[in-house]
Amino acid sequence: MQIRVINPNTTRGMTDTIATAAQGIAAPGTRISASQPAHGPVSIESHFDEAISAVGVLEEVMAGERDAMDAYIIACFGDPGLLAARELTRAPVIGIAEAAFHMAALISTRFSVVTTLGRTGIIAEHLLDQYGFRHHCRRVRAAEIPVLDLEEDGDAALNRIIDESRRARDEDGIGAIVLGCGGMADLTDEIGEAVGLPVVEGVTAAVKLAEALVGLGLGTSKHGDLAFPRPKAFVGRFEHLSNGAGVS
Amino acid sequence: MQIRVINPNTTRGMTDTIATAAQGIAAPGTRISASQPAHGPVSIESHFDEAISAVGVLEEVMAGERDAMDAYIIACFGDPGLLAARELTRAPVIGIAEAAFHMAALISTRFSVVTTLGRTGIIAEHLLDQYGFRHHCRRVRAAEIPVLDLEEDGDAALNRIIDESRRARDEDGIGAIVLGCGGMADLTDEIGEAVGLPVVEGVTAAVKLAEALVGLGLGTSKHGDLAFPRPKAFVGRFEHLSNGAGVS
Amino acid sequence: MQIRVINPNTTRGMTDTIATAAQGIAAPGTRISASQPAHGPVSIESHFDEAISAVGVLEEVMAGERDAMDAYIIACFGDPGLLAARELTRAPVIGIAEAAFHMAALISTRFSVVTTLGRTGIIAEHLLDQYGFRHHCRRVRAAEIPVLDLEEDGDAALNRIIDESRRARDEDGIGAIVLGCGGMADLTDEIGEAVGLPVVEGVTAAVKLAEALVGLGLGTSKHGDLAFPRPKAFVGRFEHLSNGAGVS
Amino acid sequence: MQIRVINPNTTRGMTDTIATAAQGIAAPGTRISASQPAHGPVSIESHFDEAISAVGVLEEVMAGERDAMDAYIIACFGDPGLLAARELTRAPVIGIAEAAFHMAALISTRFSVVTTLGRTGIIAEHLLDQYGFRHHCRRVRAAEIPVLDLEEDGDAALNRIIDESRRARDEDGIGAIVLGCGGMADLTDEIGEAVGLPVVEGVTAAVKLAEALVGLGLGTSKHGDLAFPRPKAFVGRFEHLSNGAGVS
Amino acid sequence: MQIRVINPNTTRGMTDTIATAAQGIAAPGTRISASQPAHGPVSIESHFDEAISAVGVLEEVMAGERDAMDAYIIACFGDPGLLAARELTRAPVIGIAEAAFHMAALISTRFSVVTTLGRTGIIAEHLLDQYGFRHHCRRVRAAEIPVLDLEEDGDAALNRIIDESRRARDEDGIGAIVLGCGGMADLTDEIGEAVGLPVVEGVTAAVKLAEALVGLGLGTSKHGDLAFPRPKAFVGRFEHLSNGAGVS
Amino acid sequence: MQIRVINPNTTRGMTDTIATAAQGIAAPGTRISASQPAHGPVSIESHFDEAISAVGVLEEVMAGERDAMDAYIIACFGDPGLLAARELTRAPVIGIAEAAFHMAALISTRFSVVTTLGRTGIIAEHLLDQYGFRHHCRRVRAAEIPVLDLEEDGDAALNRIIDESRRARDEDGIGAIVLGCGGMADLTDEIGEAVGLPVVEGVTAAVKLAEALVGLGLGTSKHGDLAFPRPKAFVGRFEHLSNGAGVS
Repeated sequence: MQIRVINPNTTRGMTDTIATAAQGIAAPGTRISASQPAHGPVSIESHFDEAISAVGVLEEVMAGERDAMDAYIIACFGDPGLLAARELTRAPVIGIAEAAFHMAALISTRFSVVTTLGRTGIIAEHLLDQYGFRHHCRRVRAAEIPVLDLEEDGDAALNRIIDESRRARDEDGIGAIVLGCGGMADLTDEIGEAVGLPVVEGVTAAVKLAEALVGLGLGTSKHGDLAFPRPKAFVGRFEHLSNGAGVS
Repeated sequence: MQIRVINPNTTRGMTDTIATAAQGIAAPGTRISASQPAHGPVSIESHFDEAISAVGVLEEVMAGERDAMDAYIIACFGDPGLLAARELTRAPVIGIAEAAFHMAALISTRFSVVTTLGRTGIIAEHLLDQYGFRHHCRRVRAAEIPVLDLEEDGDAALNRIIDESRRARDEDGIGAIVLGCGGMADLTDEIGEAVGLPVVEGVTAAVKLAEALVGLGLGTSKHGDLAFPRPKAFVGRFEHLSNGAGVS
Repeated sequence: MQIRVINPNTTRGMTDTIATAAQGIAAPGTRISASQPAHGPVSIESHFDEAISAVGVLEEVMAGERDAMDAYIIACFGDPGLLAARELTRAPVIGIAEAAFHMAALISTRFSVVTTLGRTGIIAEHLLDQYGFRHHCRRVRAAEIPVLDLEEDGDAALNRIIDESRRARDEDGIGAIVLGCGGMADLTDEIGEAVGLPVVEGVTAAVKLAEALVGLGLGTSKHGDLAFPRPKAFVGRFEHLSNGAGVS
Repeated sequence: MQIRVINPNTTRGMTDTIATAAQGIAAPGTRISASQPAHGPVSIESHFDEAISAVGVLEEVMAGERDAMDAYIIACFGDPGLLAARELTRAPVIGIAEAAFHMAALISTRFSVVTTLGRTGIIAEHLLDQYGFRHHCRRVRAAEIPVLDLEEDGDAALNRIIDESRRARDEDGIGAIVLGCGGMADLTDEIGEAVGLPVVEGVTAAVKLAEALVGLGLGTSKHGDLAFPRPKAFVGRFEHLSNGAGVS
Repeated sequence: MQIRVINPNTTRGMTDTIATAAQGIAAPGTRISASQPAHGPVSIESHFDEAISAVGVLEEVMAGERDAMDAYIIACFGDPGLLAARELTRAPVIGIAEAAFHMAALISTRFSVVTTLGRTGIIAEHLLDQYGFRHHCRRVRAAEIPVLDLEEDGDAALNRIIDESRRARDEDGIGAIVLGCGGMADLTDEIGEAVGLPVVEGVTAAVKLAEALVGLGLGTSKHGDLAFPRPKAFVGRFEHLSNGAGVS
Repeated sequence: MQIRVINPNTTRGMTDTIATAAQGIAAPGTRISASQPAHGPVSIESHFDEAISAVGVLEEVMAGERDAMDAYIIACFGDPGLLAARELTRAPVIGIAEAAFHMAALISTRFSVVTTLGRTGIIAEHLLDQYGFRHHCRRVRAAEIPVLDLEEDGDAALNRIIDESRRARDEDGIGAIVLGCGGMADLTDEIGEAVGLPVVEGVTAAVKLAEALVGLGLGTSKHGDLAFPRPKAFVGRFEHLSNGAGVS
């Protein structure tokens, strides 16, 4: 089984962090390959960054189709381009926010999210609403650290995440913590030990969900809402997407 | 007051249809300018089309900022890039789905949507949920016509929309119809006459909402969730977006 | 275009405040006329006050119909008699709570309401639920000032509203403030400057929404739920309402 | 225990029907007295009728307070003036829609409402939302009979209600029927026999709920939202309501 | 009328407390009999305790059917086995959590629950969701006392409940308190006096609701979801339940 | 990794069907063991059957704890005893309804459930609400076949399920079918081929989710709501559960 993990931002270090976390959790028969867009933002901290990054995510899925991937993971907590990506393939596509919410709901009755910047909390809240997990989530909290600080100033970032996670544990009446950024994929164990609650991280959760779906022979439904896009012309910089190029 | 109406697809004919509808409804002091992305799909009929189109929408908003626009309208019924666009400007940004839902809720207790293709219904449903209008909408219906047929085979398309709208009137227990595509902007009167219910169309609704907000001195809040994106590097094809280029 | 702004309470000073705010925001072609019931409470601070005031609101709408008004505004934050008023006319009828919620949702992802007395908070919460804006509103706050203090003890009232608005800004994670009383219509600018967030006020918002709907040629749907009431006998003090008197 | 059953319309025959139903179900120690407003509509079939009727309901509650009633019932399915009435008294006040929904939810997992006119369905839907019973109600159906036909053309009305109730039983997957009009209070047995499902009628349900609350020593909370209205001036036709006249 | 009050735990002292409270509130014509399972936990403080206790509840309902009971009350705040119990009888079956929520919603717009242990709060929250009262309940609070402390260390327990109830009154913006444990049935008056808000207790509330339903001639619907279980074989320790033994 | 699949009913043939399906999907390193209660109903088709079966499920989990299982699956579509079972172990516990809903939501935007008997539909609806998937599910349908007919009259049962699934595909606007009974675990392929949509079956879905959680090192949170039950006395037939016997 081959899973393509797509880091929606263009920071190689974060792609490596994510790939390492994914490989560390993958089953013996699973081959992880990681990629990042050739075009896009170095980090995703706003609706704007997310919208631009979605194009790169979709191009990476198309590239993955040429490589006959069995599943895809979108490794940014806003799940950028998720439904669009599903349209492009019969394979399962899993977002890491989605994956973390599903897993957290299976091991606890209530959880809180600890994310990077407060301004991205609204993205998580919209996803909780859309996916149906609003009542399972007590609170979306932010450690107020820019995403790239996870790479560049790791210890300070880790400490702030641990502090916020402890506040979640003590104030929110929860049973689990959801980490709200793909860049935290290597911090799960340390946070879990420091906080004493199950800590659910989306990249690893998504790998196991992808393996699960592939194992079940289940892929994205091509009946109805998520069928392949109708072929059509694209112009300008996106002309290469015309007539279903790269789309099965 | 200057309002930039952005047609998120790249079909000039549809931009013209939309611009004409917008100009026809604008107040004396309002100057409408219409634009379309230089890059993107010729029509928007899937999550994929929508995701690609969002980039063009955002670039058009940036161009509008250089022209000191007072408000923006995103003239595709999926409101592609809406929250991202709001981050880029202090001006109001209105999506036409959103505009139509707001207006329909002010003149009726329940409405139905008549859109183009069934597969885009899920996009409308997600917006109804996110905006809070799910209980006001009885049903999302599709006339099952491709978007560009509105341009190329107008009479047949009109008849199918009228037929579906009559079914909505007779079966759904509603007080108003919402037209679910920017390309229907010139059909409102004919449909309204044929169906005998108020027909709410998003492009015209958005123009009046934009005028309303500008008149009130209200623009997109720059406090919190919709603040300007943090400046950062973008790479590759999107390098020109680096460091807040084009962003106030 | 002629808009009748109805102050549901009988305090002339508040009618004047509201009329001035409405006139100040109206478009050149809009003629504002303000009225207040001949019968009813001097202020509205409970479900009881609101229920009594609704009769006066409806009589003012009937009077407006004789004057061929193009739109109506109900200028009390509980939107008393709103759906009943809509039954009486083909013109749009806008409540100021409703207007403020719609506008606030267009410029921010989340807002808080600052109203007068805590006991009226439940009225705002019920409206948020009915209109669909519950998830957009973080909190309904009260400055704990009686409504008429806005007239009689303006400076102290203003200070309390500003204090509460600042708390909303600092604690609620919001992008905008909604003012929860028609009597605050002249305080918007001062509060906005003091607080530094967009402040949405319902009277002015409703004027622009009314202009928008009239401009669109949209009025209250007479198909279904909001059709004119069936003519019938009324007895006693309400005999003059018999057989659709005053109802088109 | 003395319960005042208030028929919100002014039709004596319907007051008698309601009073008879209430007396027939009352416990031995319960004294039922019925009243109707001196002022108001002869039937309630719209938001307008309902808004006018609320004044009469409130005056009847005030009269009841002078008679030291132990509980009040508002015997119209829209529960007109319910929260306002609660503000006027320490006694419980029960609406018949509310009463029927509560009882139906205790004996079935899902029910449908059969009401008089389709246009009043929206009133029932809003109450279902506000009270929290939306998910328990499968459908609000209308027999399309004017309210006074229940008095004047009883047999035909009964047949239509039975027909609609049978459709509800066969199509809606329900366990119980809720009758959606106070004027149906004498038809419960006949409908129940004809349809073969439990039929919940609001007047009788409200009598038993009122007895229950009085028996428990529970009355309307005077702490917070439902405290007595602040005394104030009323002018014109409502001057007699000034300064808490008639309010404890 | 004969009402069987079933204490789902096996602690005789608590059965007596509950029976006394039920008898104290019952109408003259009502005969209360109380029972407790022969098999089960001495107190219910977890989903596990609740699941085991449900069997005993159901056996007590079957025993009640042999005694021709007119109604049943399940006197534990988690309403264990409620829908299953309803399947076994044509009589009404009332849970005390359900009863308390219904009554509290009739006398206040918002209430808080004060229960024993924090870990059982999730049970109350799930019931609030299922029954439709989530929006009426501001907060589920715990006094953090084990259930049997209500029997064994009554004064200390009472003081903690009063303290938590006062915090609810002062912080939650509510009009009523709901007591969240059957073992508090004898404390209602003391708590009410100490706190100064209406206090709704489920055992007494359920007795009056049961009397109300029986008085109305309403029992559990046997049409659809709550019909008698299909007879079938049970094996092992539950063989005596085979073929509808004990089921009408 | 050792997964214990618990068939909550006592029919050996169904346990075998379930075990075979589970083994067929399990990863190489996974050892499936299946069990069924020694005590309980031969099939589960009501709330009553479900409540009795929960005891057996819990005893099987306790037995599993003595065997040091890594995860548990509750293989009945009502997920009987799920939260109680979670309290008993640090291992993950997955219900098959839950598992199927999660998986279906990852590959489609909307699905319908096809279950056995109409009367059990309400159980599925309550689970959809509690888990948060109500909006993803278009309709809960029943083939109206008793559970044991799946064993005893397999071909006729299969045909009815296929017929109902085709109606779901053609009428509900869905992308996937969820099979609503553990006894259908061996029918997935045949139904999928006949219907042409992805078919999600809970037993197999749960095996892969259990493997996923174990792979992630995630087990049921022991912090808060799902902590081990407090040790206490049980009496009578359940005395063996006293003082945390069998509970870690």
